[in-house]
Amino acid sequence: MNRTYTDDSVALHTDLYEINMILTHWKKGNDQKRAVFEVYYRNNPFGMGYTIFTGLERVVRYIEELRFKESDIAYLREIEQYPEEFLTYLKNWRFKGTLRSFKEGEVAFANEPLIQVEGSIVDCQLIETALLNIVNFQTLVATKAAQIKSAAGNDPVLEFGARRAQEMDAAIWGARATYIAGVDSTSNTRAAKIFGIPASGTHAHALVQAYRDEYQAFKAYAETHKDCVFLVDTFNTLESGVPTAIKVAREMGDSINFLGVRLDSGDLSYLSKRVRQQLDEAGFKEAKIFVSNDLDAETILNLKMQGAKIDVWGVGTKMITAYDQPALGAVYKIVSVEGNDGNMHHTLKLTGNVAKITTPGKKQVWRVRSYNDKKPEGDYISLVDERPNEQEELFMFHPQYTYINKTITDYNARPLLHDIIVDGKVVYTLPTLEEIRDYAMQSLSEQWEEHKRLLNPEPYPVDLSQKLYEAKVETINLFKKMPTDQSKSLF
Amino acid sequence: MNRTYTDDSVALHTDLYEINMILTHWKKGNDQKRAVFEVYYRNNPFGMGYTIFTGLERVVRYIEELRFKESDIAYLREIEQYPEEFLTYLKNWRFKGTLRSFKEGEVAFANEPLIQVEGSIVDCQLIETALLNIVNFQTLVATKAAQIKSAAGNDPVLEFGARRAQEMDAAIWGARATYIAGVDSTSNTRAAKIFGIPASGTHAHALVQAYRDEYQAFKAYAETHKDCVFLVDTFNTLESGVPTAIKVAREMGDSINFLGVRLDSGDLSYLSKRVRQQLDEAGFKEAKIFVSNDLDAETILNLKMQGAKIDVWGVGTKMITAYDQPALGAVYKIVSVEGNDGNMHHTLKLTGNVAKITTPGKKQVWRVRSYNDKKPEGDYISLVDERPNEQEELFMFHPQYTYINKTITDYNARPLLHDIIVDGKVVYTLPTLEEIRDYAMQSLSEQWEEHKRLLNPEPYPVDLSQKLYEAKVETINLFKKMPTDQSKSLF
Repeated sequence: MNRTYTDDSVALHTDLYEINMILTHWKKGNDQKRAVFEVYYRNNPFGMGYTIFTGLERVVRYIEELRFKESDIAYLREIEQYPEEFLTYLKNWRFKGTLRSFKEGEVAFANEPLIQVEGSIVDCQLIETALLNIVNFQTLVATKAAQIKSAAGNDPVLEFGARRAQEMDAAIWGARATYIAGVDSTSNTRAAKIFGIPASGTHAHALVQAYRDEYQAFKAYAETHKDCVFLVDTFNTLESGVPTAIKVAREMGDSINFLGVRLDSGDLSYLSKRVRQQLDEAGFKEAKIFVSNDLDAETILNLKMQGAKIDVWGVGTKMITAYDQPALGAVYKIVSVEGNDGNMHHTLKLTGNVAKITTPGKKQVWRVRSYNDKKPEGDYISLVDERPNEQEELFMFHPQYTYINKTITDYNARPLLHDIIVDGKVVYTLPTLEEIRDYAMQSLSEQWEEHKRLLNPEPYPVDLSQKLYEAKVETINLFKKMPTDQSKSLF
Repeated sequence: MNRTYTDDSVALHTDLYEINMILTHWKKGNDQKRAVFEVYYRNNPFGMGYTIFTGLERVVRYIEELRFKESDIAYLREIEQYPEEFLTYLKNWRFKGTLRSFKEGEVAFANEPLIQVEGSIVDCQLIETALLNIVNFQTLVATKAAQIKSAAGNDPVLEFGARRAQEMDAAIWGARATYIAGVDSTSNTRAAKIFGIPASGTHAHALVQAYRDEYQAFKAYAETHKDCVFLVDTFNTLESGVPTAIKVAREMGDSINFLGVRLDSGDLSYLSKRVRQQLDEAGFKEAKIFVSNDLDAETILNLKMQGAKIDVWGVGTKMITAYDQPALGAVYKIVSVEGNDGNMHHTLKLTGNVAKITTPGKKQVWRVRSYNDKKPEGDYISLVDERPNEQEELFMFHPQYTYINKTITDYNARPLLHDIIVDGKVVYTLPTLEEIRDYAMQSLSEQWEEHKRLLNPEPYPVDLSQKLYEAKVETINLFKKMPTDQSKSLF
């Protein structure tokens, strides 16, 4: 290929095989057949017991602006001999499907549908790649942030990761995801600007290095800013950095607001205790100790265990990249499809790996809470026409070990999949970021501590309804015979 | 904060502390003082011996469009009480600095300056975050791709990672980085379109699941596409998938180009051998076996060791996220700064961790090759005014273990930092992607196998010139006295 095209469209932000499958469906006259696809992931990340679902706003914006531009059509014309009529079809194509989703900020669990897309098979297929690209990352980073906030307890956590994020979008949407999960601010000014996240940041080593003099550098900073956090480890934290910060704070007195000092290297446990002592002895008992330097949930837990005197945690690389598990692995699977008979049929994928067999059928997810203690009993996945919220009692059983079961009464069942886009129209009012964050905090607070603890959390029940379970078993049995029984072809 | 702003500018894609330091420099009348900053990383990733430097094109485009828009100014006005004059200063600001860089595709090593920025301290400071955000990710993923290509030997490797990438930019720029490092194509159609990377992709499980019939699905695909790779593991690879693919290939005959089959689950070693046998017995000896499913360099090496009959490798998650080490950790450090005396002075950062002490001074990096065998002797970092390429002999010594040294003659020393932007003007013609890829292949081919092997590579020498070494020692000694000697303040 000798020419490249303007990046003026996200319609081709999709794997080429989607376009190739769409061609097949269009040519075979199946492009208007309806289908249902669902997004889910198989395992909670980081050894945690849950995730914080994030990414919906970006998904909605992506779908809203989704159409093939001239440059897309010209490109497709060049790379494959797609029929002109097909290219015209794509050019006129608009998303007319329906998208249901968890609310952003909802606590979510493995193996439950987080997003459900229903529409023509073309509509469903085309958005797969971008949907997963967005939700996989944002949900992962929000969850990582929840882990780190959990380790930090009531201490503020500041997001510092822009320079280590995996390119610009990750820095921007990652900062937003961490804020939803409870992080207190971001250093990324663009993310702060476009999402309304509190921005934070004072100065770097480069300021002190430019002056080559800590006193003059701190003093210059203090004379030009109201709120001061001095970075004290450029030369020698205990012998020069902190004493100089104290000196400048004293000289400037009330004309500045001396918030504290930041440590970015060395033995943070030891140094923080000594620095606390220095600040206290100088009368700055309110001054805070900020730290940064490759922090992660485990480092924070360990520092706290060692009695480190740290007030504020600046977390970069490990949070923004979800360093210990940088991919969530959510998938997008077809669960129901319209046959030539005009009816919707369950469909699934068989595989040698039993755990990877999908659950067929269009579903709803219910968060079931006991009226007594208000805490969840588990999530209950039903076929979409079931109404567990209107029943007197609910029989809940483990989806693999079915002999583990319970019958509950006095409960409330709240549906988690909400209409976001219906027949191509956005019907959902996107909440503000603060509302999403509040929702996440509330959704988390409803959970048992046992499911939220960071090490070996108790698995949260994600159960299938009796009907859904039976539909799964029937479909598996049907599919086992499928290859030899071609009379059953749906298309 | 109650309002948010349009995302119409990348000027604020920077940590807030950069803006705050710029304010201090501006208010103190130091904003036009000149400085030199350099980008480098401390350790080669993935246990490898090198990296493939990538990201320059994106950096150049970023700087070219860099200016504060109304929305940026309005935002800054809202969050802090920045003086109006300062906001006007930012609004009129343009990057007037000089940027020198390795060429994209150049093989690079730990602790050498890959990019050097020289200009007013404001210009240098403002671009730090975005520069690192871009170069850290792109260089990391190119290097990961080089590792995977190295494991795959002469087999094609296809980039399949869009859905698992860390948001959209990572999918796009990541695909480009992997192509530079030798990967053969991408499934990401948008990346293929805007960069001119070959696109690849046939069909997914969803096609077979929609038909619920493998034969009809393969047949429909074959009737609508010329080049066919059938995905054969939806029901049962050996008993249904491959026999059905063979059946359709025979029926369609010359009307299609039967390229082969793809396996996406199960025991890829065992299955590939059985599938090879099935294809061969059916007379399809040219048909290739494509595999995918969480592949990484080590999986590929192991499958090859087991004699797996795999021809083409589709690699997703593990490559696009650099899963085993998702951050490179490159930093941007000030090395030289103009004092009140009008002269440039070395500067560095002291720290308890000896390995993290920076090397001061504006530098050049030379790739030193012997005339005899054309292979590199090592990289030689000098102060910028040294001319090792014009000397008769070169004394090279280890930067820590200085008693490890050699004197070489009959050599060629090629400078690696090139002028890209001079005084705010782009003076470098950005190469095409194919040229960058060719350059990477050539830069790799010049290296000894011993430095390139994946496990325990022999460390490649990255040495300092005698003058640079002495400058470093002198500056360290100066800085040790610094805190107590304030007469030396540069600003």
